[in-house]
Amino acid sequence: MANNEDHFKKVVSHAKEYGYVFASSEIYDGLSAVYDYAQNGVELKNNIRNYWWRSMVHMHQNIVGIDAAILMHPTTWKASGHVDAFTDPLIDNKDSKKRYRADVLIEDYAEKLEQKAQKEIKKAKKRFGDAFDETQFVSTHPRVVRYREEQKEILGRMAKSLAAEDLKDVKTLIEELGIACPETGSKNWTEVRQFNLMFGTKLGASAEHATDLYLRPETAQGIFVNFLNVQKTGRMKIPFGIAQTGKAFRNEIVARQFIFRMREFEQMEMQFFVRPGEELKWYEYWKETRLKWHLSLGMGEENYRFHDHEKLAHYANAAADIEFNFPFGFKELEGIHSRTDFDLKAHEEYSGKKLQFFDPELNKNYVPYVVETSIGLDRMFLAVLSNALEEEELEDGKTRTVLKIPAILAPTKAAILPLVKKDGLPEIAEKIIEDLQWDYNVVYDEKDAVGRRYRRQDAAGTPFCITIDHQTKEDNTVTIRDRDSMEQERIDISEISEKLKKSVSFKTWLQ
Amino acid sequence: MANNEDHFKKVVSHAKEYGYVFASSEIYDGLSAVYDYAQNGVELKNNIRNYWWRSMVHMHQNIVGIDAAILMHPTTWKASGHVDAFTDPLIDNKDSKKRYRADVLIEDYAEKLEQKAQKEIKKAKKRFGDAFDETQFVSTHPRVVRYREEQKEILGRMAKSLAAEDLKDVKTLIEELGIACPETGSKNWTEVRQFNLMFGTKLGASAEHATDLYLRPETAQGIFVNFLNVQKTGRMKIPFGIAQTGKAFRNEIVARQFIFRMREFEQMEMQFFVRPGEELKWYEYWKETRLKWHLSLGMGEENYRFHDHEKLAHYANAAADIEFNFPFGFKELEGIHSRTDFDLKAHEEYSGKKLQFFDPELNKNYVPYVVETSIGLDRMFLAVLSNALEEEELEDGKTRTVLKIPAILAPTKAAILPLVKKDGLPEIAEKIIEDLQWDYNVVYDEKDAVGRRYRRQDAAGTPFCITIDHQTKEDNTVTIRDRDSMEQERIDISEISEKLKKSVSFKTWLQ
Repeated sequence: MANNEDHFKKVVSHAKEYGYVFASSEIYDGLSAVYDYAQNGVELKNNIRNYWWRSMVHMHQNIVGIDAAILMHPTTWKASGHVDAFTDPLIDNKDSKKRYRADVLIEDYAEKLEQKAQKEIKKAKKRFGDAFDETQFVSTHPRVVRYREEQKEILGRMAKSLAAEDLKDVKTLIEELGIACPETGSKNWTEVRQFNLMFGTKLGASAEHATDLYLRPETAQGIFVNFLNVQKTGRMKIPFGIAQTGKAFRNEIVARQFIFRMREFEQMEMQFFVRPGEELKWYEYWKETRLKWHLSLGMGEENYRFHDHEKLAHYANAAADIEFNFPFGFKELEGIHSRTDFDLKAHEEYSGKKLQFFDPELNKNYVPYVVETSIGLDRMFLAVLSNALEEEELEDGKTRTVLKIPAILAPTKAAILPLVKKDGLPEIAEKIIEDLQWDYNVVYDEKDAVGRRYRRQDAAGTPFCITIDHQTKEDNTVTIRDRDSMEQERIDISEISEKLKKSVSFKTWLQ
Repeated sequence: MANNEDHFKKVVSHAKEYGYVFASSEIYDGLSAVYDYAQNGVELKNNIRNYWWRSMVHMHQNIVGIDAAILMHPTTWKASGHVDAFTDPLIDNKDSKKRYRADVLIEDYAEKLEQKAQKEIKKAKKRFGDAFDETQFVSTHPRVVRYREEQKEILGRMAKSLAAEDLKDVKTLIEELGIACPETGSKNWTEVRQFNLMFGTKLGASAEHATDLYLRPETAQGIFVNFLNVQKTGRMKIPFGIAQTGKAFRNEIVARQFIFRMREFEQMEMQFFVRPGEELKWYEYWKETRLKWHLSLGMGEENYRFHDHEKLAHYANAAADIEFNFPFGFKELEGIHSRTDFDLKAHEEYSGKKLQFFDPELNKNYVPYVVETSIGLDRMFLAVLSNALEEEELEDGKTRTVLKIPAILAPTKAAILPLVKKDGLPEIAEKIIEDLQWDYNVVYDEKDAVGRRYRRQDAAGTPFCITIDHQTKEDNTVTIRDRDSMEQERIDISEISEKLKKSVSFKTWLQ
């Protein structure tokens, strides 16, 4: 996989051309940072969700699922801290009328200093060759030392000002650094203001009688408020987990990178409730278990890495990301967080209800600690798609475009192709489809030469092409072509189903 | 199934007790007309969605799915007519501060007249016995004739006033009839106003720069705006369908009947694009096909009926409901609508883009006609649950509570029960679970006497109980108990998987 901007562009255009992702409301020129999943995309998305759900919920006797509504009682978001603290610091340019995240402007400035340092290092490397000692160089070269120090100073001051809610100083910093509007060069800035990222709406008939609601910015709180009901009616014993998939919404000012950061997105979260004091053991367990799940898909061990958080959120006592090697670099794919008892205690306080578990072994009540695994379904989709897309050079010097999506996640499992549109071959194809479609999503394609149809299915990500030819009429065999190896083998029609089953069964992949 | 209020109450409380449905944010005393699906509910909901998706999308070569975002470009809702006309006429009582739908107040008044007429009919029936001629009676009895005439007059006038947007006359009508606030008796009413049922929200950072968005009130428009992209990238030929499941939101003033009418709900819709002039043929086809799908679940042919619409929406030239016999009577479960080319033409007009199909057989371009099938997933859930719940008298005079959910939809397919918690029986149970959970959602239960565990699984809707006893250690057999017949049979452990497969495979049910 080419790890660059060019590859990313190809992924985006391929996603549209082959029916994976369309811009939302495209006929109205789109809605910014919102996307629709197209006919192949919806199948891939469903398959990813299903792979997660089955492995988390059905394969764990101590994990159950729920499906809480997007609209929740507004006090939920007071208790969780989102009403007060789920904000971004924004600044407007008075001339261009463009709006920016103040912290991002400053970070971009710091990034430029780092780029300058990297340039010096590269230059020196070239000059000194094998004799180059990078560690020594960066600690002594005056310009590099200055760039790095300045960078550290700027980011440190920004972090301090934001933590102290001193937004005036954030603006002063922008002015002192001479940061200009990236689009127009104007330095005429407004004050910096905190802006809440939750989408608001109103329940009820008029402004006068309305209740202010929010579209949930995360699915986790739906699990916390249902904790006790699930524990009691499900007779769950600690340690146990509650899993959920569903939409969440964030009014991001700067949303970018295709479906990586959207305003409407889907999460797959699991909250695991444990005894206080045992949370770090379970945190390690889930870090390992989740990485293993990712690796089961065979998308390359080298494309994953852990990133342990040094700065922790106020509710966490340990946190790590599983990062994936996206076309734009290693970025968070999943987070594993030891959230302590912060959320349940906050809901106890705001609701006045006890949210505790009676532990028969310890013979006492306590508020459980929570370890969370949280994965972005859309990010996972992008990881799969960008990892799968290849332009492959073939032996004959030609190239082919192929989407090597793990077969268990592929939208369509097999394409059924009559070699020609006559001689009874389409009828045989139809019979095969009638048999397979009880268990698999399959497609029929009779248009164009069979080689072209193979290419089309390669590009769409279909793992198998099954071709009915004249020999089929004689001996009831077909060819089955593997998308990745392009190898063909001749098998009896009665063997197709078993062959597909082996390739796309959960047991094959998850074990 | 008892067809009454009492049964409905039992369904609601059973849904909570057995982990199917909880009130949303219950610890904060709930959010009105919003519900959360609990650990069994989410599995039932997923299974219903899956049963629909597979039969509609995977079993039809000419239907594909999509998953459009909930947030759409706001012009979508201008084109669809929702901004201007998706409204309810509301009236407030000035004394009680209670708000009502003006049309519902008037309909309730008319309903009371009908109840009076029914009382007279009942009385006369009792008096005259077999000699009673109802047709003659209702056309001659002065009071009944008056009640019916008055009723017709009131509803006619209301319909006329609403159609003419003469809200003043709707209020006058309420005053003339002397309709009082049902809670307080006050007749001190405000004016009638039209209130839009769409939830609004704002995209962007401030009121000044914000774009007004809506939470989609139906999923259908997500299909229409994507029609051309899907047709082209999917190489679809007319007739073809696009299916979608997803959340929709309506700011209902009076939401009632548990999950039957919620503010946040999920639809399963399919739009079938056909040649103009062929829409009524396809309308009949889909009416039949959809009813057959419902009947495949075996919930009683007598519980379904068609209701053909006499009054058609402005976009339709034919429409029917499939009604189900809910505990509160026959109500709409699914709608089949011949929507003409209304939506696509409206989107052409508002977007300035051509939304046409080139028909190679006719050698011309046209805007396709659309036949829609639209089912409420939550209603389907309620239909299944209320139909399934039974209090059954047993031969020994005792009763049992059982949820006879169709096995293919049941949240848990089997419970694995060691007869006792020792002698190595739990270990055998665990092994069976390890084997089955690759394919089925199964649970383990070792608590209480086995008879009590059977009752618990009956009430939770689990179709099979598999019990490991001491004989298992000798000959590798277990008992498998059927939820509905309560019959037990002894089978080899190796046969369990095949037995489940037969009972819960799509082919068994859909064929």
